[in-house]
Amino acid sequence: MASSLGRLSGSRVCSVALGSGLPRAWTLGPVVGRVCLTGLGGTGSGQNRGLGYGRGTGGVGAGGGARRAPWLVAGLAAGLAGVAAAAFHHLAPAKMVPKTEVASSFPDKADELALRCNSFMSQPVTALSELRARPGDMKTQMELLIMETQSQVCQALEQLDRGATFAVDRWERKEGGGGISCVLQDGHVFEKAGVSVSVVHGILSEEAAKQMKSRGKKFKTKNGQLPFCAMGVSSVIHPKNPHVPTIHFNYRYFEIEEADGTRQWWFGGGCDLTPTYLNKEDAVHFHKTLKDACDQHDPGFYPKFKKWCDDYFFIKHRGERRGIGGIFFDDLDSPSKEDIFRFVQSCAHAFIPSYIPLVKKHCNDPFTPQEKHWQQLRRGRYVEFNLLYDRGTKFGLFTPGSRIESILMSMPLTARWEYMYAPSENSKEAEILEVLCHPKDWVH
Amino acid sequence: MASSLGRLSGSRVCSVALGSGLPRAWTLGPVVGRVCLTGLGGTGSGQNRGLGYGRGTGGVGAGGGARRAPWLVAGLAAGLAGVAAAAFHHLAPAKMVPKTEVASSFPDKADELALRCNSFMSQPVTALSELRARPGDMKTQMELLIMETQSQVCQALEQLDRGATFAVDRWERKEGGGGISCVLQDGHVFEKAGVSVSVVHGILSEEAAKQMKSRGKKFKTKNGQLPFCAMGVSSVIHPKNPHVPTIHFNYRYFEIEEADGTRQWWFGGGCDLTPTYLNKEDAVHFHKTLKDACDQHDPGFYPKFKKWCDDYFFIKHRGERRGIGGIFFDDLDSPSKEDIFRFVQSCAHAFIPSYIPLVKKHCNDPFTPQEKHWQQLRRGRYVEFNLLYDRGTKFGLFTPGSRIESILMSMPLTARWEYMYAPSENSKEAEILEVLCHPKDWVH
Repeated sequence: MASSLGRLSGSRVCSVALGSGLPRAWTLGPVVGRVCLTGLGGTGSGQNRGLGYGRGTGGVGAGGGARRAPWLVAGLAAGLAGVAAAAFHHLAPAKMVPKTEVASSFPDKADELALRCNSFMSQPVTALSELRARPGDMKTQMELLIMETQSQVCQALEQLDRGATFAVDRWERKEGGGGISCVLQDGHVFEKAGVSVSVVHGILSEEAAKQMKSRGKKFKTKNGQLPFCAMGVSSVIHPKNPHVPTIHFNYRYFEIEEADGTRQWWFGGGCDLTPTYLNKEDAVHFHKTLKDACDQHDPGFYPKFKKWCDDYFFIKHRGERRGIGGIFFDDLDSPSKEDIFRFVQSCAHAFIPSYIPLVKKHCNDPFTPQEKHWQQLRRGRYVEFNLLYDRGTKFGLFTPGSRIESILMSMPLTARWEYMYAPSENSKEAEILEVLCHPKDWVH
Repeated sequence: MASSLGRLSGSRVCSVALGSGLPRAWTLGPVVGRVCLTGLGGTGSGQNRGLGYGRGTGGVGAGGGARRAPWLVAGLAAGLAGVAAAAFHHLAPAKMVPKTEVASSFPDKADELALRCNSFMSQPVTALSELRARPGDMKTQMELLIMETQSQVCQALEQLDRGATFAVDRWERKEGGGGISCVLQDGHVFEKAGVSVSVVHGILSEEAAKQMKSRGKKFKTKNGQLPFCAMGVSSVIHPKNPHVPTIHFNYRYFEIEEADGTRQWWFGGGCDLTPTYLNKEDAVHFHKTLKDACDQHDPGFYPKFKKWCDDYFFIKHRGERRGIGGIFFDDLDSPSKEDIFRFVQSCAHAFIPSYIPLVKKHCNDPFTPQEKHWQQLRRGRYVEFNLLYDRGTKFGLFTPGSRIESILMSMPLTARWEYMYAPSENSKEAEILEVLCHPKDWVH
């Protein structure tokens, strides 16, 4: 059921949560073009007025095709209007990435960069002037990779979902950095799809530092403070058809600046598939695509990260995995930044070929109410994993000032719990359960 | 939608989970009378065969009216068939409550006890012979109170739900004790209603002891071991109509035997209401009924326990309470066992008059799809509270060998999450949100 409460048909108006209070009015409706608003200038029509930010054919600035980023036309204002969502309130003001508003000394590079950013869902979180100032820095490379991944995934999903568009929600963190959350909800093909980018920097909270130490990390602090920079792209896609699997991916990069100026860095990430019903051919295709991406870099990666994934996405109290796995890794910090970055890049590029063919193959499959019902029960398990076990979700929710709506973007639109439900023996439902309880090797 | 997958129309067959594995086949269907099965004797028809246990007009034994407990007719077997669910596997074998199978020295009392138990959903967890042997003990008094409460609540709900019946699921804990879970799912009035009793005893796990110590409790252990006995009744009721509120209550008793033979004991419990829409008259009625129950015992109880409730049922990351509160208390251990028991008894007796009139008043109210939609979003918040914050739920789920299905009985049948949803200003949805963010004093 498409929900209508509190929504204005044919319009999209958005605002963002300020602090931990309630989000203000937010309405979504069937909009064909992306509506672009600054929220301060009153450039939108009555129907399109709001505080959000997005790409589109209408709104701020003149011209620009449907896929032109209007902020390029409107100017690269450092402080975008209508952005708020003071995430990570508990952290001290950001110090690690000083804003350099000086003109770039690489005008050719700048043009290349501007062209590249043209296809993104929104301008990068970091000002282009700053990205231009450090072209070879890993932070620049990674931010461009996650922005590009967000854009490519959103565009691929929109193409599949007959005219549905992602709402683009840009938010800033007071102490430094911010994010861009893109959400497509109640489309034709997708029940809920979120693709989120965040780039935050500042001083590490004590709790975060403690968590990292518990993973064996040791840091030399300056007056107990640890400047950090963290960035990543994260996505969860819940399709409507129970024969199209749910998928999640996340790729992230972390830097800590120690007292003596040395920088510790690491990458983490992964991608895992959660089908409602088992399709062996799909499982093999998905795992093989990830394995090929891994094998380009190290033949030991896939088996190691496949097992890590099976271990991580485990719903302990049920004795089941969330899905049929994929890859998962964390704290990757050798042999070199560039080597691991290229590996992460291969993984990010593997997402579309690993998943989109499965959506195309099954999105028009007929399904029964019973199959939808089983999907809803499995969605319940997804909720259980995310709220009870997922480190990122729990860390985010328990961090004062976090942007809750971006964290809970991963929740399905609907879920179901029945007391003592269990599928009958030899059913298709029992078949997938068997694999969730006993993970398989799909590529050997 | 009444789900049909894996169910046999017109029959009810149940079995229970063994350990942490998957529950076996469990089917529920429209049954008018309660089906009573031993599961070992093959006394049921083909349609009624199973491993469960219940009351009813058919099944084991002869005769017995619709409200007769058939196990009284079939005999008071200590080890009921079809019960399993090895809860609390991690605990050492129970030592605290030795099974005394000797005949009671109070035959008159025994008859009175048997008559009282006649109305229960199942025989008490503790063998009647043992209850007879310690008539004045608090454990006996409390077990009878929680069994009686379960029975009265189930019967009151069944009467409202036009012929729907609770499935009765009895389970035993290997190391000592067990429980009785009663669930009514997808009825006419109730989406999901669970009323569960558990009476467990044994040696306290280290984790449980640590949790208690963190609450300031100190115990003298014998070789590091602490024999304990814990019992309680717990219920969550999710109605279908969005104008009927969801409710939860729980009353529990705990005993620890110290090294020198002294016993520490305490009571805990509470009752809280979660309306989808605010009805001030209902809120006043609910709170006033609880206040009256409290005031009979101590005029300081209601204000103290009302505040405790508002503080406990707080969804921190949302800045909202789960509902409009009620009462909540824990670790009550003075002035005397009997005094607190009488208070808990008053609270338990207050449940039906506090809630049933609200169900009767609103269960036939007309409602719109928009109102149902808002209810589903609020159900999502209920799930967030239960999985992220509720101490009982988390403790249970993270305790190896717990009976997961009894713990997650509290989950709604269905729930919904939308990105950035917020009701429009001055709407009925905004009205209840305001109260959830800023709890009110309803009775002054």
